[in-house]
Amino acid sequence: MIKVGVVGGTGYTGVELLRLLAAHPGVEIAAITSRGEAGTPVARMFPSLRDRVDIAFTDPATTDLKSLDCVFFATPNGFAMGQVRPLLDAGVKVIDLSADFRLKDIPTWERWYKTKHSSPDLVAEAVYGLPEINREQIRRARLIANPGCYATAVQLALLPLIETEFVDHGHFVADAKSGVSGAGRKADVDLLFPEASDNFKAYAIGGHRHHPEIVQGLRQAGGKEVGLTFVPHLVPMIRGILATVYARVVREADFQDLFERRYADEVFVDVLPTGTQPETRWVRGSNYCRIAVHRPMGGDTLVVLAVEDNLVKGAAGQAVQNMNLAFGIAEVQGLEQTALLP
Amino acid sequence: MIKVGVVGGTGYTGVELLRLLAAHPGVEIAAITSRGEAGTPVARMFPSLRDRVDIAFTDPATTDLKSLDCVFFATPNGFAMGQVRPLLDAGVKVIDLSADFRLKDIPTWERWYKTKHSSPDLVAEAVYGLPEINREQIRRARLIANPGCYATAVQLALLPLIETEFVDHGHFVADAKSGVSGAGRKADVDLLFPEASDNFKAYAIGGHRHHPEIVQGLRQAGGKEVGLTFVPHLVPMIRGILATVYARVVREADFQDLFERRYADEVFVDVLPTGTQPETRWVRGSNYCRIAVHRPMGGDTLVVLAVEDNLVKGAAGQAVQNMNLAFGIAEVQGLEQTALLP
Amino acid sequence: MIKVGVVGGTGYTGVELLRLLAAHPGVEIAAITSRGEAGTPVARMFPSLRDRVDIAFTDPATTDLKSLDCVFFATPNGFAMGQVRPLLDAGVKVIDLSADFRLKDIPTWERWYKTKHSSPDLVAEAVYGLPEINREQIRRARLIANPGCYATAVQLALLPLIETEFVDHGHFVADAKSGVSGAGRKADVDLLFPEASDNFKAYAIGGHRHHPEIVQGLRQAGGKEVGLTFVPHLVPMIRGILATVYARVVREADFQDLFERRYADEVFVDVLPTGTQPETRWVRGSNYCRIAVHRPMGGDTLVVLAVEDNLVKGAAGQAVQNMNLAFGIAEVQGLEQTALLP
Amino acid sequence: MIKVGVVGGTGYTGVELLRLLAAHPGVEIAAITSRGEAGTPVARMFPSLRDRVDIAFTDPATTDLKSLDCVFFATPNGFAMGQVRPLLDAGVKVIDLSADFRLKDIPTWERWYKTKHSSPDLVAEAVYGLPEINREQIRRARLIANPGCYATAVQLALLPLIETEFVDHGHFVADAKSGVSGAGRKADVDLLFPEASDNFKAYAIGGHRHHPEIVQGLRQAGGKEVGLTFVPHLVPMIRGILATVYARVVREADFQDLFERRYADEVFVDVLPTGTQPETRWVRGSNYCRIAVHRPMGGDTLVVLAVEDNLVKGAAGQAVQNMNLAFGIAEVQGLEQTALLP
Repeated sequence: MIKVGVVGGTGYTGVELLRLLAAHPGVEIAAITSRGEAGTPVARMFPSLRDRVDIAFTDPATTDLKSLDCVFFATPNGFAMGQVRPLLDAGVKVIDLSADFRLKDIPTWERWYKTKHSSPDLVAEAVYGLPEINREQIRRARLIANPGCYATAVQLALLPLIETEFVDHGHFVADAKSGVSGAGRKADVDLLFPEASDNFKAYAIGGHRHHPEIVQGLRQAGGKEVGLTFVPHLVPMIRGILATVYARVVREADFQDLFERRYADEVFVDVLPTGTQPETRWVRGSNYCRIAVHRPMGGDTLVVLAVEDNLVKGAAGQAVQNMNLAFGIAEVQGLEQTALLP
Repeated sequence: MIKVGVVGGTGYTGVELLRLLAAHPGVEIAAITSRGEAGTPVARMFPSLRDRVDIAFTDPATTDLKSLDCVFFATPNGFAMGQVRPLLDAGVKVIDLSADFRLKDIPTWERWYKTKHSSPDLVAEAVYGLPEINREQIRRARLIANPGCYATAVQLALLPLIETEFVDHGHFVADAKSGVSGAGRKADVDLLFPEASDNFKAYAIGGHRHHPEIVQGLRQAGGKEVGLTFVPHLVPMIRGILATVYARVVREADFQDLFERRYADEVFVDVLPTGTQPETRWVRGSNYCRIAVHRPMGGDTLVVLAVEDNLVKGAAGQAVQNMNLAFGIAEVQGLEQTALLP
Repeated sequence: MIKVGVVGGTGYTGVELLRLLAAHPGVEIAAITSRGEAGTPVARMFPSLRDRVDIAFTDPATTDLKSLDCVFFATPNGFAMGQVRPLLDAGVKVIDLSADFRLKDIPTWERWYKTKHSSPDLVAEAVYGLPEINREQIRRARLIANPGCYATAVQLALLPLIETEFVDHGHFVADAKSGVSGAGRKADVDLLFPEASDNFKAYAIGGHRHHPEIVQGLRQAGGKEVGLTFVPHLVPMIRGILATVYARVVREADFQDLFERRYADEVFVDVLPTGTQPETRWVRGSNYCRIAVHRPMGGDTLVVLAVEDNLVKGAAGQAVQNMNLAFGIAEVQGLEQTALLP
Repeated sequence: MIKVGVVGGTGYTGVELLRLLAAHPGVEIAAITSRGEAGTPVARMFPSLRDRVDIAFTDPATTDLKSLDCVFFATPNGFAMGQVRPLLDAGVKVIDLSADFRLKDIPTWERWYKTKHSSPDLVAEAVYGLPEINREQIRRARLIANPGCYATAVQLALLPLIETEFVDHGHFVADAKSGVSGAGRKADVDLLFPEASDNFKAYAIGGHRHHPEIVQGLRQAGGKEVGLTFVPHLVPMIRGILATVYARVVREADFQDLFERRYADEVFVDVLPTGTQPETRWVRGSNYCRIAVHRPMGGDTLVVLAVEDNLVKGAAGQAVQNMNLAFGIAEVQGLEQTALLP
């Protein structure tokens, strides 16, 4: 049994991680910390976990995390970077669901996250936890930077194109749409039901923090510069991301085949049959990213659609997938939930 | 033109009041105050009001409200009671949408609202602004206590029964359901879209502040004690209240006829034809309360259903109706919006 | 492995049954029939089942169901009653999710379902599949009538009261609220998103088919007549039922304790701690019914709240629970999903 | 008073037209036809119209429409083209909300709508009712082809760009999102609440009927060929369209200024201040199209966002605007509703 701890278990990625870990046959949840909720039984805060998680939140200051095998950070950005070093030194594997170790370029990180980074050397060591790119490094990693939700969907939608030369790499458009849980469980007037329901809007049009993350990944995968316009939108639904990605074809190819071959061995990336129009509920609660490739009216613009559950493949599920890899157990363990439909 | 001011224009009852007042042919909006948003153009905060409301929020401390004809308080409970006296002294009519002047019994108010009341004499003077009961007093009032949203629906559903002796007055059950805007525009995790959407729950089962308000109104209308179990529920919709009220028949009557006659002259209470099952969207954005009377399977339990828009007849619309009465203009002025369906 | 078939797999209870059965370690799904969709791969119709269910719908006329161990009917009312006899004769256990075998009194069934019943003798044999009442009979049953969704929630909310004499059995009120999936997957204008969203209404106020089912169950459990007013409402959410049940206390008791003791051994009935206000999302996708007992303001009216997922404990999950019992395997097998929250 | 008739008043554009016309000070609603609902009072079908519309649906076969001043067709595609000639001959002005007269090229129309067109000469005469392009022709028109909902939003978002040479006209991307009412009030399983709620998807990716309509409008406005990729998406909300339009800058300009000048005299097109991120609820129930112009991260891709209520500016409101123009009354009459927020 892998003994795991979760730091910051009161947000949406935290409770989702607990849902998955509690059902994972190879895991024992040993500790869940929360400064604000220390002493509260986890299942009192999240009654969906009654009879699943029996422990209480504990104070991070007094919780012994060093004796565990694996610690997940489901904390706000800027917190994990100051906490992981002693854990790594003690031999604990760390999976950070926040953004602290995602961007290799420190000045870029500091500009987007408006904080000084306290552990640049750990950034250098950290492995970006997208198994479809970095599976082998993840297996050997001590510190894994779990990707952002949009970043996962957009990169998976573009990888087969970026690794080849059939489309213009300089002018991608990613028009992405996310359910409201993507914004986190924080008291913010803009996220109230009466504000977000029966409504639709774009946000962060001028620049979103997942932009540099996506560009870094694409640049590395393609081996050259990429140009990307990324516009996220807020959908009145709880979970789910749909990314609609536009690329200009510059050389002909069988794009359906290109995608199917690229992901043939990927258990959690499902390339849908030609003509399929994916829906976010097809992955609700599951770890799949399902992708469809379209070429509207035979024109020169390729449209790739990717759906994922932002809390599963976009966060907690991918974190468990990374844990499975890092501990050498089956990649799918604990991740076999079927999507909840309707 | 009636020159009006709104104190506390940044909540949901505030912005709804502005929507109605901006379209009212007999009103000029002279001032809208907000401590936190002083200087911000109203239409920047609520772009739905672009080209409708051209002024900015002003600081309440420096805004001359005494020169106005009518001031609405759309403020949190406990604020208006300390502010209205100088306005009344200056000859301004005041309509308070908060709960400060609703309960005649001061100890009861103080128990439910957990504050000492600063102006008991004004409570004594204030007229409870339910036109269907107190129309004549409202016409002459200086200070109007605008009813609560649930309180309006439940009282209108029960008035014809409470004024007669056909049902048991000792055991009413009001199972009420409200859209989330009823909880106000405040940063509260429980009201976030991912918490309130695709979900249903009861709340305040142990006791809700509208309980004493309803009981006070029914007791006064019926001239004797009443027993009421009142359980509010939160519906994943923005606006609307449906109250399902259960009463035990103790003497036979034609209840449909009873309701139709009671409300024959009430323009904003619509007794629906026999067999109708009202929906909250039938009143979305309008000032109607629509009521249906049922007797399931011919038994001894009467079921009365009342729908209203909690922000209109349940708050801002009723406030405008009260203003119209208090200023001697047509009761329907500015309140002729048709419900938005779908 | 239990070889199972599903007749009528294209509705919401059908697809939910497939979700559960596909993950059940002791089950092999051998056939799924649909007249209209014969030949269509199940996962093409419900892509959430990709990689979970690999077979196609088959024509019921040409599908050999008699060689199976267990057949579920997820068909419209009035269909199963004409189909099950040859299956029973062949030794197949049948679990009917429709209403065909729920009501023991044939004239009552015929009045509510407006059809002549073709198999009264099988009604007599059928066991009503509410394990919390009939567990032992279910273990020995050939034919199980799976309860209705409302009927499950309301009966579980009332059982401890009906089995004792602390409340008035003659005047129960059950104000029930259901998500829209409860109405089934049928093309009906009233169930369209623009009709049902951002809206709330009661329906079937004059009489709902689950009324006689609930009354039959309560009468049997209590051993005497019961009086019940039952009003269902439609909530703009996909899944979930909350039943708010009102009962008049006639003799004092510790009701919390009464409920806890009654359900102490029931794995899928969760009596919540005093003061808890249950939410439908606490059981979304899981087989629990969670119940809270309240006594508002210490009065003589008891308020019992029960939540369940109408498609799981209210339909497909309970059907699997019944199958487990009928085949002598662990009651919880295949039913250990944690609720999806948020 | 303009005497108007509505043919096909039972769909969403029909009931929205009735909401607007009933409140229009210069209009008398003389007839509303429906084959299926003849004899039913309009307000029984749409109780939101109680006390607003007092007439019943009548049979189109026996309704005298020729004596009216103006007739609106809110009928399925393919119906109006066979009905309008005698009305025009009788001097009635006709406004068709369906697609029958929108496309000038008959073969294109017949390919997209899969029917032979019965009145090509009337297509030639019909004026495309987008006042922001064709105001003067609309004033003189007998027959007005009211634009599609997406077509209105996308054209208004692109007009200032297409009339100038600052962006690449050959590669526009319009990623459009619509509320579910855009699909009409028809019994379709895909539009059920449990299918469309808490879900997001693209549809008609291979080609949508508004594509040729948009391209025709842009080609005419720009005087040359345009290339457009248009992908519509379904949002779990009732009303509203947001179009996110991407264009490649080829020559520098002050795009904010370009838009502001283009629409300076347009009362229903609201160019928002720099940096604004429009929301569909800002126009819910109102006739505005609000537009924002962005240039993310200073790159070469311009992002224009346009929001409208698909049933108002995208259908019924624009139809009333066209009627006002055609009858020489104030363009804003009956269209001054403030958006309903929240």
